[in-house]
Amino acid sequence: MNADRVIADLRELAELTGGPDGARRVCWTDEWVKARELVRSKLEELPVEIETDEAGNVWADLPGEQDGFVIVGSHVDSVPAGGWLDGALGIFGALEVLRQHADGDRPVGLRFVDWADEEGARFGRSLFGSSACAGTLDIDEVRDLKDREGERLEDVVGRHDVELAKVHDSGAHLKGARAYLELHIEQGPVLEARDEPAAVVLGTVGVERRAAVFTGRAAHAGATPMDMRQDSFLAAARAALLIQQVGLAHEGGYCTTGGASSDPGVVTAVAGRTELLLDQRHLDADELAAMLKEADEACHTAAEEFGCTVEVKHLWSIPPIPFDDRLIGFAREALGKDLAIPSGPLHDAAEMARLIPTVMVFSKSSPPVSHTPEEDTPEADLKVAIEVYGKTVAATLAAAAEGDLPPMG
Amino acid sequence: MNADRVIADLRELAELTGGPDGARRVCWTDEWVKARELVRSKLEELPVEIETDEAGNVWADLPGEQDGFVIVGSHVDSVPAGGWLDGALGIFGALEVLRQHADGDRPVGLRFVDWADEEGARFGRSLFGSSACAGTLDIDEVRDLKDREGERLEDVVGRHDVELAKVHDSGAHLKGARAYLELHIEQGPVLEARDEPAAVVLGTVGVERRAAVFTGRAAHAGATPMDMRQDSFLAAARAALLIQQVGLAHEGGYCTTGGASSDPGVVTAVAGRTELLLDQRHLDADELAAMLKEADEACHTAAEEFGCTVEVKHLWSIPPIPFDDRLIGFAREALGKDLAIPSGPLHDAAEMARLIPTVMVFSKSSPPVSHTPEEDTPEADLKVAIEVYGKTVAATLAAAAEGDLPPMG
Repeated sequence: MNADRVIADLRELAELTGGPDGARRVCWTDEWVKARELVRSKLEELPVEIETDEAGNVWADLPGEQDGFVIVGSHVDSVPAGGWLDGALGIFGALEVLRQHADGDRPVGLRFVDWADEEGARFGRSLFGSSACAGTLDIDEVRDLKDREGERLEDVVGRHDVELAKVHDSGAHLKGARAYLELHIEQGPVLEARDEPAAVVLGTVGVERRAAVFTGRAAHAGATPMDMRQDSFLAAARAALLIQQVGLAHEGGYCTTGGASSDPGVVTAVAGRTELLLDQRHLDADELAAMLKEADEACHTAAEEFGCTVEVKHLWSIPPIPFDDRLIGFAREALGKDLAIPSGPLHDAAEMARLIPTVMVFSKSSPPVSHTPEEDTPEADLKVAIEVYGKTVAATLAAAAEGDLPPMG
Repeated sequence: MNADRVIADLRELAELTGGPDGARRVCWTDEWVKARELVRSKLEELPVEIETDEAGNVWADLPGEQDGFVIVGSHVDSVPAGGWLDGALGIFGALEVLRQHADGDRPVGLRFVDWADEEGARFGRSLFGSSACAGTLDIDEVRDLKDREGERLEDVVGRHDVELAKVHDSGAHLKGARAYLELHIEQGPVLEARDEPAAVVLGTVGVERRAAVFTGRAAHAGATPMDMRQDSFLAAARAALLIQQVGLAHEGGYCTTGGASSDPGVVTAVAGRTELLLDQRHLDADELAAMLKEADEACHTAAEEFGCTVEVKHLWSIPPIPFDDRLIGFAREALGKDLAIPSGPLHDAAEMARLIPTVMVFSKSSPPVSHTPEEDTPEADLKVAIEVYGKTVAATLAAAAEGDLPPMG
């Protein structure tokens, strides 16, 4: 792998579609189209066949001698005012993999992909292209999603030649797929805290989102003695603190109460109703279920303490999606150490992992922020991550050439 | 006192300007004007001189033989969808006092007042008329207040013949005042909980309002391990629970954290910044100061626990305004028992208490709610409160006639 060339490509993209205010490659906009044109111009230097599928994903095929192919890719779209690496690192890392394998013998082929609308920044639905390809996108759920200007998703993607009714046809590009590998920036503080440039990713964590609605009794802040109150905000406060303990008690677990909204929610009144947001994540489904049960109990304990009732409402959930043990093994070897972490954020790789052996490699986030212009990985660390990714792909190709990782039917 | 007549008057007003959706006598509206016309028609049956002052307050003067007069009154305005008694009880209680003293000898005069815009429901500034009269209204602060339709306070009151620059001239009506007495519904749960129909009011509590702004570090809910967080919402939650303990530890104290708003405040992120609302009240200034100090300490303790910083911002404050001991004594005698409580809500009486010996009598709130159509006092309890009020005014007039309570210069 020529890591310097990957970094130069990334800088060129940032020059074209970024700047001091951050990346502006929001999907289905002119800046995104411009970013894709840059990627296409670089793909066209290689002996590949380029195609845009029914869901707006761009594929570039570098065929091999045997059946099937290994997929490498990520997404070139960004959030508004995003970072220079989120998505783009995986795109140019995958492009460099193609370059490395463009000449000479290729027992097994490579297929590059740039997924459409990973971020969901415009319509609030992330993983559009990869979930369409995997067959998990519910077309009726997204058709009428509106952007801030009130434009419908169906109309906007239509202007980019995506006919919503046909997006699942993009799944045909997976026929023959033998593995999926993606390089991405961590978007978290773990590697910086451990002073590590890169890590293997074990899978994407399962997520359980709830809204706990505490109901007490609204009351005048000056007319209601302390011992006569049923304060829903205090109940929510207690629940949040108990739920933090649940997270601390389960290794590898995440419990987040991102905020609460109270009614009436004014300085002059005891809150009669408070809604507490709850997000729980774990890579292990049993641990996640246990955390959810304990959080529910914490809400009821807290409600009782303050004379309130509580209803814990389901908002959204997704099970843990573990990556492939064999590919994880290749990545560990490439990294040269046993450093593997789960991914809290979702990725296109999670959609692929439902169908194909999948793994990801993370580069360090330093500073440990994401979705802001300050997002970064120091160049020396980037180079390590790019090398690890390249070696992992090479090991995967070699295993496939030996008959492992059979093509998807 | 003819309590039945007071109740009949109240029912007549509710018929005219209330109904199933509650009272709708919002100040500076046609419904409020209609309510005042009803009050005026009843005042005109008495030998009084009626006048509207520069701040929109209505006065009715029943002169006595000696210098000066005792003021009785309240406010006929209401919040939107308010109760039938809030303000109106004191208006018709005061009217009945005038009726009781209209015939026969009157050593000391009586002056009825209907204060303009006690509620501040339209422009958010309560006690408009009484604070103008007391000289504490800052005209420049209220001039450009806007209602929901964007109309300026100065323009709206101008249509009711109130010239803002002259509102302090209304203070002339206090020259000769010897005492101020007001009957009002409690707007709280204390009397219902004690099964008492009425109580003497000791004064209005002092209030300290703050916004405690906790700053931690915003972070992805799935990418940031539990032990690497600086969670501003958890800091605020801890502070709220500690502040509740402050309120419980100070008898007669009120500590309310009515809610918190977090930034980003979404389910997928640890809150980087959380603003906690804080309202503290006590009738004793030293106790209030101690509570404030302890709440401030609680905020700092909580911030430290979660690796956050905190800034406690001043929003608004008012010192405790104790009522007159001598008048409190008369009211206790009239009630026949030693039941005296502070008022958490402010009242026009607080503005008068700055200048004139003042006392209030409360009727029970049952159900213990306020500013809703459900507000009520059972009739039997109303009668007790009205009688206590009448007797307290009579005792005040008698003391004044004997040379006590000298006229205000």
